[in-house]
Amino acid sequence: MFHGIYAPIPTPFDDSGEIAWEKLRDNLDWWGKTSLHGLVAAGTNGEAVLLDNEEKERLFAYVRENTPSEKKVIAGTGAESARETIRLSRAAAKNGADAALIITPHYFKGCMSDEALEKYYLHVAESSPLPIFLYNMPRNTNLNMSAGLVARLSKHPNIVGIKDSGGNIAQIGKIIEKTGSDFLVSAGSAGFLLPALLLGAGGGTLALANVMPEECVDIYTLFNNGELEKARALQLNLLDINDAVTARFGVAGLKAAMDLIARYGGPPRMPLLPVKEEEKRQLQEIMQQCRLL
Amino acid sequence: MFHGIYAPIPTPFDDSGEIAWEKLRDNLDWWGKTSLHGLVAAGTNGEAVLLDNEEKERLFAYVRENTPSEKKVIAGTGAESARETIRLSRAAAKNGADAALIITPHYFKGCMSDEALEKYYLHVAESSPLPIFLYNMPRNTNLNMSAGLVARLSKHPNIVGIKDSGGNIAQIGKIIEKTGSDFLVSAGSAGFLLPALLLGAGGGTLALANVMPEECVDIYTLFNNGELEKARALQLNLLDINDAVTARFGVAGLKAAMDLIARYGGPPRMPLLPVKEEEKRQLQEIMQQCRLL
Amino acid sequence: MFHGIYAPIPTPFDDSGEIAWEKLRDNLDWWGKTSLHGLVAAGTNGEAVLLDNEEKERLFAYVRENTPSEKKVIAGTGAESARETIRLSRAAAKNGADAALIITPHYFKGCMSDEALEKYYLHVAESSPLPIFLYNMPRNTNLNMSAGLVARLSKHPNIVGIKDSGGNIAQIGKIIEKTGSDFLVSAGSAGFLLPALLLGAGGGTLALANVMPEECVDIYTLFNNGELEKARALQLNLLDINDAVTARFGVAGLKAAMDLIARYGGPPRMPLLPVKEEEKRQLQEIMQQCRLL
Amino acid sequence: MFHGIYAPIPTPFDDSGEIAWEKLRDNLDWWGKTSLHGLVAAGTNGEAVLLDNEEKERLFAYVRENTPSEKKVIAGTGAESARETIRLSRAAAKNGADAALIITPHYFKGCMSDEALEKYYLHVAESSPLPIFLYNMPRNTNLNMSAGLVARLSKHPNIVGIKDSGGNIAQIGKIIEKTGSDFLVSAGSAGFLLPALLLGAGGGTLALANVMPEECVDIYTLFNNGELEKARALQLNLLDINDAVTARFGVAGLKAAMDLIARYGGPPRMPLLPVKEEEKRQLQEIMQQCRLL
Repeated sequence: MFHGIYAPIPTPFDDSGEIAWEKLRDNLDWWGKTSLHGLVAAGTNGEAVLLDNEEKERLFAYVRENTPSEKKVIAGTGAESARETIRLSRAAAKNGADAALIITPHYFKGCMSDEALEKYYLHVAESSPLPIFLYNMPRNTNLNMSAGLVARLSKHPNIVGIKDSGGNIAQIGKIIEKTGSDFLVSAGSAGFLLPALLLGAGGGTLALANVMPEECVDIYTLFNNGELEKARALQLNLLDINDAVTARFGVAGLKAAMDLIARYGGPPRMPLLPVKEEEKRQLQEIMQQCRLL
Repeated sequence: MFHGIYAPIPTPFDDSGEIAWEKLRDNLDWWGKTSLHGLVAAGTNGEAVLLDNEEKERLFAYVRENTPSEKKVIAGTGAESARETIRLSRAAAKNGADAALIITPHYFKGCMSDEALEKYYLHVAESSPLPIFLYNMPRNTNLNMSAGLVARLSKHPNIVGIKDSGGNIAQIGKIIEKTGSDFLVSAGSAGFLLPALLLGAGGGTLALANVMPEECVDIYTLFNNGELEKARALQLNLLDINDAVTARFGVAGLKAAMDLIARYGGPPRMPLLPVKEEEKRQLQEIMQQCRLL
Repeated sequence: MFHGIYAPIPTPFDDSGEIAWEKLRDNLDWWGKTSLHGLVAAGTNGEAVLLDNEEKERLFAYVRENTPSEKKVIAGTGAESARETIRLSRAAAKNGADAALIITPHYFKGCMSDEALEKYYLHVAESSPLPIFLYNMPRNTNLNMSAGLVARLSKHPNIVGIKDSGGNIAQIGKIIEKTGSDFLVSAGSAGFLLPALLLGAGGGTLALANVMPEECVDIYTLFNNGELEKARALQLNLLDINDAVTARFGVAGLKAAMDLIARYGGPPRMPLLPVKEEEKRQLQEIMQQCRLL
Repeated sequence: MFHGIYAPIPTPFDDSGEIAWEKLRDNLDWWGKTSLHGLVAAGTNGEAVLLDNEEKERLFAYVRENTPSEKKVIAGTGAESARETIRLSRAAAKNGADAALIITPHYFKGCMSDEALEKYYLHVAESSPLPIFLYNMPRNTNLNMSAGLVARLSKHPNIVGIKDSGGNIAQIGKIIEKTGSDFLVSAGSAGFLLPALLLGAGGGTLALANVMPEECVDIYTLFNNGELEKARALQLNLLDINDAVTARFGVAGLKAAMDLIARYGGPPRMPLLPVKEEEKRQLQEIMQQCRLL
């Protein structure tokens, strides 16, 4: 049901730092016409931690309203506290989101034992009107969900999948091996999409899908059609640009890439800084090398 | 002006998870009668990331109202975004706080270059009606402010000091060496209070000061009076209990220690879990060994 | 030429801590009859850092002499200094080894810039009579070779491949994408063998191949025959046992597994400790679950 | 008996990479006339991991022969295996060393539990004719000895102290608090010498003592004489230069600093690279700022 390729969309801001709703609609119009299976609003690439709650709620509604109904909209609703996560998940439901993506709480990472995370997610799953995706994002959280924990959580009927951005392919294999076929594993980066699909992942939630939606969906489709060699060539081709819009230049890089393909990226919010001119030039070169420009 | 020993107070909750205002007043009454020089509200030990904004603002006001005026109240106002940090700092000012303690934004830590942090803090300092303390907390943020960055920031008239909880005593030395005498370095943990004072720190902001206020102030006073040997004995004596209420058992341990000294600790908010019975027993033993019980 | 599945063999010791040559021969006789394409002597699993130079040289000769000539023998010759690495590589050549596997020097990891590693490997490659495999092993070295560095080194005619044990599948993809078809990428752990093959790796050097040689070779053969689904099932099935003989129980676990399949594992050398009885029981259970016992 | 300030001397090489014995004697002549209490041969700064065993043994003898008898000579004898460590410790004894400094084995750091390290050190202590210093060096080993482990090991009569280079001053406090007055804690870097002395350390083993022996000894002497303010000024003054000859530029930086004070530093062995011209210039500037040049 949530299979396929999702774009965790950036939140566009105008020069005064306010959400640029018109620009967002233009982007949504474009994504809406692509082969993408769905969008994630207020994820890491949506600068969720830099949005206030009112903005998030409006964003959920706005994205749902401006996205074709056959495409899913998943709302990033994870906060540090269970209270806030539940509140936001309920608000996302009211605003039409199809599922909630919930990052591991991490500020108190020294205390985030498997037991603490298990109790947290079960409590949230009980209280959320929306089905839940676990969200493992070690690069930002400095915390990794173990395969065993994910397997235990997958038994809860309201926990329907995981977005694993850690990139540890052996762990992704273990999660797939230990969970049922109704539990969806979504590759959290285009850097390991094809290997994850090979092991049984049901799709990907990929920053890169914002700027290269068709190429990302192509890998998924080619793999499902057994055209492995073509899928492999595409996968290898997008490693450098994927790096550029994730680890290397971050959200600001993703936004600059949106600008370079003539969509709206715009500036990130402080403390994030826009990419520098020199970085933009490097990004452009990488995009040309992988034939995106 | 902000010299001395501060307790970063825990936020007490009742069993339903709401702030237990009456219990807080009892605790404040007690701290108010100690030799502590001030309190920090909504810091790490106050579970700031688990409080919503309305709670934080009411907390700032409540703590200020229930604390003797000769003791300072510092408000933890750091959020991930500059917008929110500024908003909260202004609210803290309105609610009577004497200064703002602002943690490094860290979710996008891969992008938090010295340049990004410098721009962030300068922007916040320009906009905050309250004087600002930098807050370096690598254990939670996985980010360390360099001595060079702190030195540059110290030149801004509204940036008056740093709470450095990293525990790298050579770095603390470098910060002291590179900043002027009007820039206050506050040791961020009782584990290195005396060494920091020796190098020129002006005090400490210490989780342990919540449960052992007089012993912590004694180290400060003994050091200032040149009674080094007594200060050293006290410092060595509190290392184990300090460990227990910080890295080892976390905020839940600090709250359990409050309960054990017959103040109100109570439960933390989810995802934090209360200490287990066995851990409480260990904590009790450690408190007895250092003659706190 | 070096394609296929290699077992990085453990070095058996008797109870007094000396190399148990007879036991080694028995193991070699067995591995010699398997489908393995080759062996690595004095790698991480061979406790190379716990062997002296005389032992290593004798080991290279002994393994070569007792291994069928159609199977390759690769010698682990990497030391901290270029001098020692070159000396050992020359000795390995004299003793009949087919190639040298050279780990990144790492004690001075703060100084191991790409530039330092590049100069090191080029110098060693110039001086080694044997073709060289780079060996990236972040779990032990706390150092990761970048894909760019590997690509530059791959241009040297005497640097023929890399054993990458890091498990970052995106990095493996980037290495494959940036090197020519004559540069061999060998998956350094069975945990990501199939995903690496999919991206273009030419084989694997797998601790697990010591105890499950045919299953590991099967994945390789099935993949090459296009029987992806069967390969996938095998890959998922061996994740837990692979974990057990690598990260979880280490070399001592690998040796215990050898004992459990009625080959000779024996004790590791100090400071390594044999697995405890309880760990052995867990290992046995895992081996049963994956139908190895 | 081993109290005071020790210089862990660099091993000088000539341009062909061989030990430059004459240059070493010149350096030893100079150190011999300083106030240093002793030297360490074949420590981290001696590039021990880049020396072969024959060189180490000859080095121990040479340093002892060319050092005044009232100064101690400690031999770095730690290797990855207990066998080799014991062999080297015995050789060091034969060659006149006064004690052995033994680093934590670390290649298999995932297996280096407190139990493994305890057994290792007790076994070595039983077999070493020389008294033993534990050597905790997390920056190079990625391993930290816990205060509890050190306390247990300190009970062995042949384990007489620890060189702790970790820089965690709270841990140093805990070690001092948990060990007897006959167990010597030596600060492993000039970055935290004075704070460590304050808590009860008996001296320091300091890379910086190679180039600033008198200033380092002065801190020790001033502290012992109660001249805290002068000691503090010296401590703060040497933080930058200490950084430069340790973490920042490494052993190559230390050697360049030796050259700059007109002693012999010379090139490090590969894979280490000499400092670049620009780095040498920076080093010179730092040395001028702290009035060493």
